[in-house]
Amino acid sequence: MSEIKIVTNILKANDELTALNRKKLDEKGIYVINLMSSPGSGKTSILERIISKLKDDLKIAVIEGDLYTTMDARRIETAGVPVVQINTGGACHLDACMIRDALDHLELDGLHLLVIENVGNLVCPAEFEIGEDIKITVLSTTEGNDKPFKYPLAFEKSGAVILNKIDLLPYTNFDKPEFYSNVRTINDDTVFFETSCTKDLGLDELCVWIRNRVREKQRIN
Amino acid sequence: MSEIKIVTNILKANDELTALNRKKLDEKGIYVINLMSSPGSGKTSILERIISKLKDDLKIAVIEGDLYTTMDARRIETAGVPVVQINTGGACHLDACMIRDALDHLELDGLHLLVIENVGNLVCPAEFEIGEDIKITVLSTTEGNDKPFKYPLAFEKSGAVILNKIDLLPYTNFDKPEFYSNVRTINDDTVFFETSCTKDLGLDELCVWIRNRVREKQRIN
Repeated sequence: MSEIKIVTNILKANDELTALNRKKLDEKGIYVINLMSSPGSGKTSILERIISKLKDDLKIAVIEGDLYTTMDARRIETAGVPVVQINTGGACHLDACMIRDALDHLELDGLHLLVIENVGNLVCPAEFEIGEDIKITVLSTTEGNDKPFKYPLAFEKSGAVILNKIDLLPYTNFDKPEFYSNVRTINDDTVFFETSCTKDLGLDELCVWIRNRVREKQRIN
Repeated sequence: MSEIKIVTNILKANDELTALNRKKLDEKGIYVINLMSSPGSGKTSILERIISKLKDDLKIAVIEGDLYTTMDARRIETAGVPVVQINTGGACHLDACMIRDALDHLELDGLHLLVIENVGNLVCPAEFEIGEDIKITVLSTTEGNDKPFKYPLAFEKSGAVILNKIDLLPYTNFDKPEFYSNVRTINDDTVFFETSCTKDLGLDELCVWIRNRVREKQRIN
């Protein structure tokens, strides 16, 4: 009984902090992406390409979630935008409290786009709102078209789904129509992108879409 | 303060149940593998191949961990061995309590090998002992050679590491020597295997090794 109570409190506390994060970010008109996937699906590579293609037009910052290392944050720093590292110390997802603290270390004035790269994990991150405008889930073609059914929450909550490593499709048994159909069963209106970071496929389209979302948010503001 | 107490209790309860599971399985001389990886690294495919290659020599059973579906269990059933499905209902790992309940649904007499396929997650499963003799972590070549540093606990605790989808290596930037060196930094004495399920590479070697571990355990008994 007491365990259940505490879990409720944790989720309630997270919701309250999420609302505070969202208020702060909305006031500045910053569009916020929560980028989720399994380990190794290509979140950081996609992010590097997005930064490279958009950083002349948009002021971008990144929050990097990782258990222990700063490896991804160093890659993003090299890509040329401000980055804050959150090391969860073994915890399997980012929460709103971690984001609140990270926001204190970013210059938010004039920022257009904030991408939060979550811990590599297709299960837990989807359970926690952190103040984002949109969740985007990345799946690579090497992971199998059955994954939407096996990890439904991430796909259900995502406003966009990126099928990455599309260049490796011919070497796998990944069934693309089946994958799209599986996602559609769970989520009626998510947007799909197909990308390859090594072959630079689909990334321009993704960036056009992100730029439009950023502009929409600025218009609302 | 009360939160910390409860976490401690959960881990202690898990340790106690682990010991009970282990006692039960040791008494029967059953060798138990806890198979871990990210989603889509190929755990189920490897397991299908192991079963196909070993089921004439060894009596095998499988416990399948999955959030909601019985998709993998159905695949294992088709492979021709007894299988029990644990649906965690969204929880991100198997624990000793779930395994205790699953063991009640398996005929343990005469069983040689029990493989427990954990939830697809490179973070949380490594934190929970469930009564296994060995943890084996699978990583696929498409996931990147940096993963041992980013998800160290799984690699630290694994007695064997399987590098899967070795047939896709030429199409990736996966640095194999770097990967092995990264694992060695964390774990001095894990055993390495390289496998491809689509090309049937390395699986015979893996099966010889498993068969030897099973025999060792039976000799001890």
